[in-house]
This record gives sequence, C-alpha cells and structure tokens, in this order.
Amino acid sequence: MQANNLYDIKWVLTQIEQVSQFSQDNAGITRLAFTPADHQARNYIISLMQASGLTVHIDAIGNIIGRFLPEGIDTDSSPAVATGSHLDTVPSGGKYDGVLGIVCGLAAINRLKSCSDIRHPLEVIVFAAKESSRFNLPTIGSKAMAGLVTAATLNAIKDQDGIALSAELAAIGFQTKQISTANRSKNSIKDFVELHIEQGQVLEQGRIRIGIVDKVSAPTRLKIIVLGTAGHSGVAPIEERQDALVSAAMIILAIRNIAAEYEYQGAVATVTILKTYPGTINVIPGKVEMWVDIRGTEHESIIEILQEIKDAVSSIADDYNTPIAIEVLSSEKPVLLDDTINQIMEAACCKLKQTSVRLDSRVGHDAMNIAHIAPAGVVLIPCKDGISYNACKEVAPDDIAAGLDVLTEILYQLAK
Amino acid sequence: MQANNLYDIKWVLTQIEQVSQFSQDNAGITRLAFTPADHQARNYIISLMQASGLTVHIDAIGNIIGRFLPEGIDTDSSPAVATGSHLDTVPSGGKYDGVLGIVCGLAAINRLKSCSDIRHPLEVIVFAAKESSRFNLPTIGSKAMAGLVTAATLNAIKDQDGIALSAELAAIGFQTKQISTANRSKNSIKDFVELHIEQGQVLEQGRIRIGIVDKVSAPTRLKIIVLGTAGHSGVAPIEERQDALVSAAMIILAIRNIAAEYEYQGAVATVTILKTYPGTINVIPGKVEMWVDIRGTEHESIIEILQEIKDAVSSIADDYNTPIAIEVLSSEKPVLLDDTINQIMEAACCKLKQTSVRLDSRVGHDAMNIAHIAPAGVVLIPCKDGISYNACKEVAPDDIAAGLDVLTEILYQLAK
Repeated sequence: MQANNLYDIKWVLTQIEQVSQFSQDNAGITRLAFTPADHQARNYIISLMQASGLTVHIDAIGNIIGRFLPEGIDTDSSPAVATGSHLDTVPSGGKYDGVLGIVCGLAAINRLKSCSDIRHPLEVIVFAAKESSRFNLPTIGSKAMAGLVTAATLNAIKDQDGIALSAELAAIGFQTKQISTANRSKNSIKDFVELHIEQGQVLEQGRIRIGIVDKVSAPTRLKIIVLGTAGHSGVAPIEERQDALVSAAMIILAIRNIAAEYEYQGAVATVTILKTYPGTINVIPGKVEMWVDIRGTEHESIIEILQEIKDAVSSIADDYNTPIAIEVLSSEKPVLLDDTINQIMEAACCKLKQTSVRLDSRVGHDAMNIAHIAPAGVVLIPCKDGISYNACKEVAPDDIAAGLDVLTEILYQLAK
Repeated sequence: MQANNLYDIKWVLTQIEQVSQFSQDNAGITRLAFTPADHQARNYIISLMQASGLTVHIDAIGNIIGRFLPEGIDTDSSPAVATGSHLDTVPSGGKYDGVLGIVCGLAAINRLKSCSDIRHPLEVIVFAAKESSRFNLPTIGSKAMAGLVTAATLNAIKDQDGIALSAELAAIGFQTKQISTANRSKNSIKDFVELHIEQGQVLEQGRIRIGIVDKVSAPTRLKIIVLGTAGHSGVAPIEERQDALVSAAMIILAIRNIAAEYEYQGAVATVTILKTYPGTINVIPGKVEMWVDIRGTEHESIIEILQEIKDAVSSIADDYNTPIAIEVLSSEKPVLLDDTINQIMEAACCKLKQTSVRLDSRVGHDAMNIAHIAPAGVVLIPCKDGISYNACKEVAPDDIAAGLDVLTEILYQLAK
C-alpha cells in the first residue's frame, strides 16, 4: 500500500499550485461557484481523474464523481468508499481550502489502485457550490447528493447580481427538476471521509498533526433590517435623528459581546455584511441591512444566542426609535460524525505514528450532509494561524504528507 | 408688478408636479445628475423657458441659463439680476428640493416681464450637478460658473460605476477643456437670489414664513478605511479577532457623540455610507470603508470636530488592533452671504406682510459659489418636518405663494 511518498507529495503540491491559478482576481484565491474560474478548476480536476484512469460522472447539481472500480468487484452489490471536498472558494480565499481534500483523495486512490485486497469501488467527489459566498446557501452539492434540498428551493436561489443557480446549471446541461437524480441511495456509499485543513488553531497551537472531528457545527443565518429616517446629514438635530447606521453600530457591538459570552459554550455570532441606504454622502442612513452568521456545535447554545440577539435588537429598536426586523434565512443543526470511522482514524494515526486529537469543527463541511446517507468522517491537518480564508495562509508540506498518509490508510481500512 | 397670483401658484404647482414625474424610480424622486431622468427634467424646463419667451443658453458644464432682456436694455453695460437653483436630486429625494427655486424663478420673471421699470436682464439658472450623490462633489455647475473648479479636477471625476463626468458632458456636446467658458465675469451678474425649501425646522417650529440666510455651511468629507483580518466567522476566538466592522461600529458611535457635542457650536458629523469587504456571509469583515459628512457654519468648529474624529479613530485603531486611515476628500469653508441683499429681503417681507427670520443654513446651496462673483442671497420657505430629502416631505401651497411673492419683490427691487 506504500507508494513513492516523495513523488506523491510533489505531485499533490504541484496540482494544488496549478488549481490556485484558476482565480477571478489576484487578491488571494477567488473562485465562486460556477464562475468561469470554478469551471476551469473543475475541468482541470476532471482531466486529472481521467489521467488516473477513473470513470467520471457529473450529477444533476454539478457534483463530479471520479470512480475507480477494482477488478472483479460488482458495483451493484458493493457500495463505494468515498472521499472528496470542494473546489469553489470564498472571495480572496486560501490556496488549500477544499482543493487539498480533492487532490489528496485522488493521490490516495492512485496509491490504492495497485492493492489487491481492495473490495469496494473508490470514489473522489468534487462537491459543487460548497461555499455560501455566491448563492447564500452552503454545501449545495452535498445537500443534493444527500437529498436535503428540493427543486423548489434550488429554483428560488439567485446570486447578488440576480443570476439564478438554475441558469448556471442549465449552462452545464442540467435542469433543477432533475435534482432528485443527484440524490444517492444509502447503499451506494459504504463510508465517506473528507480531508480538510483546520479552520482554527487547535492543531497548530497543540503541535498535533491530525484532527479527528466528532461534531460539525452548522450555521444559522440572519438578515437584520434597521429602518431609520433618511434626511440631510447637515440638518436634523442629533438627538432627533433616527439614524439606521447608529442603531446598526449598537447591534454590531451587542452581537460581539453576546458572541464573546457564548463562544466557550460552543457557539459564536458575527455580523459579516452591512449595507447602507440610500448610500449617499450627504444623507443620513434611512435603512441598513446586516447579515449575521451564527454557528456552533451545541444546538442549545445557538438557540440561546439567537434569543439574546433578538432581545438586544428589540431594546435598541426602542431606544433609538428605529424599527428593526430579523429574518432567519437558514438554520441547520450540528451533525455528529461516525464514531466507528473515528476509531479507525485514531488507529490509522497510531499505526503511522502521527499525533492526533478529537475535536469539534465550528465550520461546515460537505461530510455533514453525506452523514445523512452514509457513515462519515472528517480528517483535519494544521493551517498556519488557522486562517483558512485568507490569501496569506500557509500549510506545511509535512502536514500535507501526513494527511495524505492517514487518508490513504483510512480508505484502505474501510475498503479492504 | 402684481400678476394673477392664483393663476401663478396653480401654474407653479402644476410644473413642480410635472417635473416630479421625471424620476429613475418610484421611491421618492431619484434624479441623479445627467441621468436620463435629469435630462428629461432639464429639457422640460428648457421648453418652459422658451414658452416664456426667454433666450436659452447652455454653458460648458451644462448649466441652463434662461434670460429675459427688457426692451432698450444693453446687455454689455447692464449686468443681469439672476435667480435659480438645481434640478438633480439625491436618491429618493423630495419633490420640491431644487425645482421650487427654478419654477418660482421662472414665474417671478413672467410676472416682472410687463413691468416698465426693469433696467437689468433677468435670468433664471438651472445649475447642473448640484448634489454630490452621483459624482461625490457638490455644486459642480455653480462652482464652474464661479471659476472654482478646474478642468483637471473635472477630468478626474467619476461616479460609482466608473462613468466619467467628462463622458456625460461629451454626450451633450461639451468638453471639460472648455470649462473656463462657463466661468462668468464679476460684472455679468449684478445680484443673485436663490429660493429653496428649508432643510431644517426653524421656520416650521417658529411658524415663520420666510428664512433669510446669513451664512451657508460647507461640507468637509472624509473617507475612513478600517483594516482588519478576514477569517472564517465560525472560527477565530472573539478576543483575538481583528474585525474591521466592530472597529467601524465604535467609530460610528464615537462620531455620533462628537456630533452631539458640537452641533450647538455650529458643526455636525454623520457616517452616511459604509461598505464591508469581502462582504461574504461566513467571513469576518477584513476591511470596512466609511464616508463621513461634516458640515457647519463655523469653520473653527469643523476643524475641532475633525481633530476629535482623528483622536477617536486613533484610539480605536490601537484598542482593536485594526489600522485605520482617514482621507479628507474635500473641505470647503462656510460662506457669508450679502447683507445688503438680506436687508432688501427683510424690507420685501415687511412690505408683503410676511414673517421672516435671519438664520444660518447647514446645507450647501449654489448661491454660496455664486457669492464669489456677485452679491448673493438665499430665501427659504418652510418644509414639513424639515425633511427635504425624503419622499414623504410636504410643502404648503401658501408657503410657496409667499415665497414666490417675496422672490418677485426682491428681484424687482434689485432690477429696477
């Protein structure tokens, strides 16, 4: 099962470098779902899959499934052992986010192809539209694969420029009404394991090589709309103003304080986007829209944080005479990953003499959706400063090598 | 000199209603400078000028000058008595803002045309691009007429979509290099008086019909850029974050407190626009841009308010470890209007039995630029709730009638 490790790592780093060239701009990696840069990256990975001898299938939501079928194995009676991650990024994202799990998954399958005792098909999956950056809904591809999203929901999804997700799917030959064909049955996948960089500092600060995720947090997203009274910014007396931006500033600070209070109870909240209207230099803001990301691994804490935000907002609305509405855009529950897989992961780390730790992930992964149709796990490797979404972030080649070794061993143990 | 007042007022209200139809959307009146809606309004006013027998001239910045030349008067030796205002609006602006002064100016000239003792040409001027909403620089047309702006400055001006002011001028047949031809000599205008709605509540609350402006405030505009560290909003511990939006919230509240402290010393400051970057729902804001409008009638207070903002910003930058830069985009000095004209205004109010009060204007008017080349004055009438820039605001027909009578009397006294 051991291949030429040095060669593999060089190949993995080269492919990650290649994919990082596909970006909408030069400020980090910007590859929003279904943009030309994303399509370039997807086509590049398809060519790598084909060069590795995998059969390639693209499902109705755009997930790319590359499959290796060992000789003498019957697809119908033998479910796949799958790995994979995403290629799309947030704006100005990092070089390793998502792509690491795809390229290492492909390298691991290449290592395992020559093993005679593999009894299951091996798959590497590129999940489409994982980031919510473009369509405001996260992990769309894996949701569709797990049957967690309907055609009606998909039909309503548009990006900030009004471009419909359905239009992007139509451009690659799919119709949202066919979405149920992307939903895989529970006996088509035996196990799923995703390799990802840690988006936190537990591994780096603890000098631990491998993270094994027990629970994946899920986001609750709010839109808060503050209504004030527009007026000339030179005129209205300060005390008589209903300045929507002043109320919004109070809300930002209130949410920061609530987040600081709850983060040790497994939930956090952040105001990430704010827009002022009319957005004119000499007019008092008459309306502010804010988007809030709440997430955590403890569902109870998320509910409490939401209530505290509602209470704070209500009090600010009264104090400043600015009506404020809160809309819950989405609310997902944290997902417990498979403990049997996690034990196999720990054994793999032990065998390969790599330090490991169990932890919770505050960020979402496609594995949390696949967990609804198959036992699923997530393996993490360290990322410098835990800044996964920043152009400056770095991942050490030694950590990638360890991640690849561990992933290969886990897939081998699950597929043999 | 008295015409059919009832007829005049009906005509004035009808024309204001007509012009209000020219709007980019239905949320109040939106007629940004040189947009199709603005061109429609400009063309409509040109047709009214022509129907009133005025000769129409458009200068190199797009100001429209309608002129009545009394019989036997020599243009060269006799400078004009002029009135006028603007047609462009802020987004979702009010129905009477600007257009009132143009339509009443035209009505006043129509009344005066039959007076045999008018010894000066009478002009009504539509000043181009008065609002800073589109090109971020206020009163562009009157600045050009008074020689207060250079071709180089104009060439650098673009709107938020990157459309150059020079391109809009080219579309109506002008080149910015000809801008000096718009600059009128000091002996081409004898006096200038602008009628406008009050953008404040002094008249309404005091139940006074006419405001006579002593001093016009001028804006100082800042752009504040806060730099934080972008990162996944589920991950970074709150205390370790460099969240640009949290620092921005502190700045918004600090500026509000500074404004409350200084407004009784003749200056005020408002954060009017805020933008978050990358503007993604699951990424901590790594950069915030804010625009601040400072204005007042006391130059010393403006300087002090600017220093207090700099001090507050510096302290917030240190406390939150977010570097913050302040750019002064523009800084204009308050303008003292002509006291002789103001005395003639007071006498006119007295003669017409209208209550009047001297006051300062916290908002800019084209008259403040024309004051550099001719004695200038501003007459105000009340506006409901002082909300000039809001679609809901109302002006009473009786107040408009009084404003028109007073304007006509002033122009008569200045031109006879």
